Amino acid sequence: MTTAHAHPATPNAPTLSVTLGQVVAALALPEHGGLSAELRGDAASTIQRIGPLETAQPGTLAFLANPKYRSQLAGTQASCVILSPAVLDDVVALPACIVTADPYRYFAALTRWWGAQVRPRPPAGIHPSAVVSSDAVIGQGVSIGPLAVVEAGAVIGDHATIGAQCSVGERARIGAHTRLAPQVVIGFDCVVGERCIFHSGVVIGADGFGFAPHQGRWEKIEQLGAVRIGDDVELGANTCVDRGALDDTVIEDGVKLDNLVQIAHNVHIGEHTAMAGCVGVAGSARIGKHCTVGGAGMILGHLTLADNVHVSSGTLISRSIHQPGQYSGVFPFDENASWEKNAATLRQLHALRDRIRTLEKQVKS
Amino acid sequence: MTTAHAHPATPNAPTLSVTLGQVVAALALPEHGGLSAELRGDAASTIQRIGPLETAQPGTLAFLANPKYRSQLAGTQASCVILSPAVLDDVVALPACIVTADPYRYFAALTRWWGAQVRPRPPAGIHPSAVVSSDAVIGQGVSIGPLAVVEAGAVIGDHATIGAQCSVGERARIGAHTRLAPQVVIGFDCVVGERCIFHSGVVIGADGFGFAPHQGRWEKIEQLGAVRIGDDVELGANTCVDRGALDDTVIEDGVKLDNLVQIAHNVHIGEHTAMAGCVGVAGSARIGKHCTVGGAGMILGHLTLADNVHVSSGTLISRSIHQPGQYSGVFPFDENASWEKNAATLRQLHALRDRIRTLEKQVKS
Amino acid sequence: MTTAHAHPATPNAPTLSVTLGQVVAALALPEHGGLSAELRGDAASTIQRIGPLETAQPGTLAFLANPKYRSQLAGTQASCVILSPAVLDDVVALPACIVTADPYRYFAALTRWWGAQVRPRPPAGIHPSAVVSSDAVIGQGVSIGPLAVVEAGAVIGDHATIGAQCSVGERARIGAHTRLAPQVVIGFDCVVGERCIFHSGVVIGADGFGFAPHQGRWEKIEQLGAVRIGDDVELGANTCVDRGALDDTVIEDGVKLDNLVQIAHNVHIGEHTAMAGCVGVAGSARIGKHCTVGGAGMILGHLTLADNVHVSSGTLISRSIHQPGQYSGVFPFDENASWEKNAATLRQLHALRDRIRTLEKQVKS
Repeated sequence: MTTAHAHPATPNAPTLSVTLGQVVAALALPEHGGLSAELRGDAASTIQRIGPLETAQPGTLAFLANPKYRSQLAGTQASCVILSPAVLDDVVALPACIVTADPYRYFAALTRWWGAQVRPRPPAGIHPSAVVSSDAVIGQGVSIGPLAVVEAGAVIGDHATIGAQCSVGERARIGAHTRLAPQVVIGFDCVVGERCIFHSGVVIGADGFGFAPHQGRWEKIEQLGAVRIGDDVELGANTCVDRGALDDTVIEDGVKLDNLVQIAHNVHIGEHTAMAGCVGVAGSARIGKHCTVGGAGMILGHLTLADNVHVSSGTLISRSIHQPGQYSGVFPFDENASWEKNAATLRQLHALRDRIRTLEKQVKS
Repeated sequence: MTTAHAHPATPNAPTLSVTLGQVVAALALPEHGGLSAELRGDAASTIQRIGPLETAQPGTLAFLANPKYRSQLAGTQASCVILSPAVLDDVVALPACIVTADPYRYFAALTRWWGAQVRPRPPAGIHPSAVVSSDAVIGQGVSIGPLAVVEAGAVIGDHATIGAQCSVGERARIGAHTRLAPQVVIGFDCVVGERCIFHSGVVIGADGFGFAPHQGRWEKIEQLGAVRIGDDVELGANTCVDRGALDDTVIEDGVKLDNLVQIAHNVHIGEHTAMAGCVGVAGSARIGKHCTVGGAGMILGHLTLADNVHVSSGTLISRSIHQPGQYSGVFPFDENASWEKNAATLRQLHALRDRIRTLEKQVKS
Repeated sequence: MTTAHAHPATPNAPTLSVTLGQVVAALALPEHGGLSAELRGDAASTIQRIGPLETAQPGTLAFLANPKYRSQLAGTQASCVILSPAVLDDVVALPACIVTADPYRYFAALTRWWGAQVRPRPPAGIHPSAVVSSDAVIGQGVSIGPLAVVEAGAVIGDHATIGAQCSVGERARIGAHTRLAPQVVIGFDCVVGERCIFHSGVVIGADGFGFAPHQGRWEKIEQLGAVRIGDDVELGANTCVDRGALDDTVIEDGVKLDNLVQIAHNVHIGEHTAMAGCVGVAGSARIGKHCTVGGAGMILGHLTLADNVHVSSGTLISRSIHQPGQYSGVFPFDENASWEKNAATLRQLHALRDRIRTLEKQVKS
């Protein structure tokens, strides 16, 4: 043990040095995306980082996702750029480029391959400090981190990762290849699919918020359902999904929820819907497939949102939406003094409308 | 250990099979509600689940809380329905029914009794992996889960449950029969009443947000108060209640807060008030008794809300409310294009009012 | 072990009894603020608590921060009041007073000194139940609490406190004198400065929310950056700061974030900016120095806020702000019936504007 010096100006993470040939070969493999691409330039030249085009330096592998920014190709310092055939005419002085149909998707696959090299990988096996019930069923190649708890009857799928200090309740099921970051809670009887990623602080299966009012008090309605989560679901830090009252709360395959999202009991979220941070969905709301909800959006309870509904940030949805489209409802911000005047007038808006009507009648007559 | 198969289509939870006679007898006991009811039908017939009337199947015990939905009685498949005397005329072909004054309350009591049979119950005693100070006082029948921490001077009441990986700070007090789910944090000196339920991720007693500005910097005001929570309080997952600056933050008996709620320092919440998910209450706000706040409502600091004030979802309360009633303030959502036009015009609203005034003068003259 | 009695009416925390002479001498020391003050009254008289002027009792040391409340001096029961020279004329019957240039700052320093006496202080050393990698570097005087995890390559600065059940990931760095409350998660490669305070449930370094859409699905963009946090930063309970996609998310020195705040990937927050509870900042937003954001404010992604921008509670910022000032955008709350009428009319606002135009033309002609 030595004295520590923290907070350095230099990056902390390990670096990687790979050749362009290695990149293109790796991403052509099925397990890394199976993406075809043509490398123009020296396959032996090396890159050390991935970065945005505008701040790229020598050693950076950059990408041009949107052809309308093609003018950025001219001045870049990047050692190589991932781009589409459509912009090849603009490539003049690049040392190298990787030509592929969907550069952004290629970039995404590249980050995953890169991450597999540099991100820590918890070792397979059960850490001796973990408390794992002898009645739990643990798959092959599972990693259970230090001080994790796995209760009786829980089932952990092959190659799943249970992070440090996680809690997996009785009879909960975690699918194969799913990864729980440290300090995730999976409640009893809840079911999580395969290849999911849950970040720290996620709580699955807390009781839904249900009470019967009686003489000014709230009498608890025990929540007897559970939570069922499909495959390829990602949940951000401190996001909550409550168990259902009688039936289950359901999150379908491919759903992505950001941090600090609240999903109440008996909500149903359709496949491949995504919600940004701080969103709330109240009880029994039914959200369609391929929807998006912007940050701090709020969906009231017992509503239905059709497939492909897109809710803007900060918008409260107070009734069902049956048509796809973009929906918004935010008070436009302004300098405080202007806002105050307009907000005060807003409280007279209905009266103003009546005054307009009166004027219209007067002018007409 | 065997290979796991997760994400099944079939329910995960254990089932229960009870006779109608058992149900009515159990709920008549004082410890399960002491509710009187008349069973019409075969007391020996069994049910396997509780469910809503509209999706009930044979084996389902359903309920009709609101007489206006009495028409649903006609086609239901339920084996038995909990209902009030007022709708008995509509009972035609039901195999059985339980007649009681307040069917919704009866249903709530039933869920609690049912849950007591099927939900996992942590065993009494201190798990050997827990770290419990020898200076803590542990009541009779207490359950302390694996890897929990109980610091010196803490007092745990009889039959309380401290879940796996909870942290109970120095001199904190937990009342009898209170249950902490896994990974709850109770800060030092904080006091929790009896029969409370705190869900995972709850943080009681983090420092309130207090700073003195000095030359462009924030100098910390140490938070010297604590948190005092009454009896029968339920707090949802990842909800926070900060300790007070000088005095305590106080939550009175019977308060129910949903997930991801923020209660700042020195807030005082009156008895039997309920707040839905994502609500925030800023410092030193004083909320009355029997209030409700809808999801993502926000109460600014140093305000007073009278008893029986109801704040709609998404509404920001910016000044004190002295009269009971329902209060709202949300921009109504619309298709994005319509919203954009109205929002842009909103920024000219004060000017529009002046134009109306001018017109009125012109028309008058 | 004995039966516990929780939820007492009397305060739970230990009391302190100090003389006024001790207070003034202590706060004059550089390590407690180095604040000069003149004590008028008996240096040997004792106080037992710090409190607000209006509720002060004998034994209370109170303060008068704002001269406009000087009339409160007349009737107070406080044993001593911290006040500025400007109000000395109003001091008539006080037993004692402490005269200093900035009473609120003096009060803040006093709370910190007081807290150092009464708040529990974790002992230095590594609790035997903690799981600390032999490849971690632990500074002098460090406290690592029970059941904490410190992974390989982590560096803990001198006199830092790692609370019970915290998780410090691989290669993470924690600066000297920084304190992590119980159950904080610091992700791998993240860097935290000196003298920071992170409250329970904080999650640093969860993956940013980044996906490439492909044929209706979301393909993960691995988040390859980390989080860099400066010195003297305080983060409230359950607040999240995500790791960057390619570069790091950065929080500069002296930033204060309250509870349940969401900081997305690649956000940059300038020095001494403060944000209240439930705020969200979306990806790649760049917030200036000395800004404030009120509770539940929301900053959309890829925006720039200049230094000294102040955002009101509940306001959504949807475009960059280049001028210092106060900005607001909240629908003013009202009784529900009034709100409903005004909100309904709001959806016709653009049409109303057109009707005003028409009227103006008609009246003019």
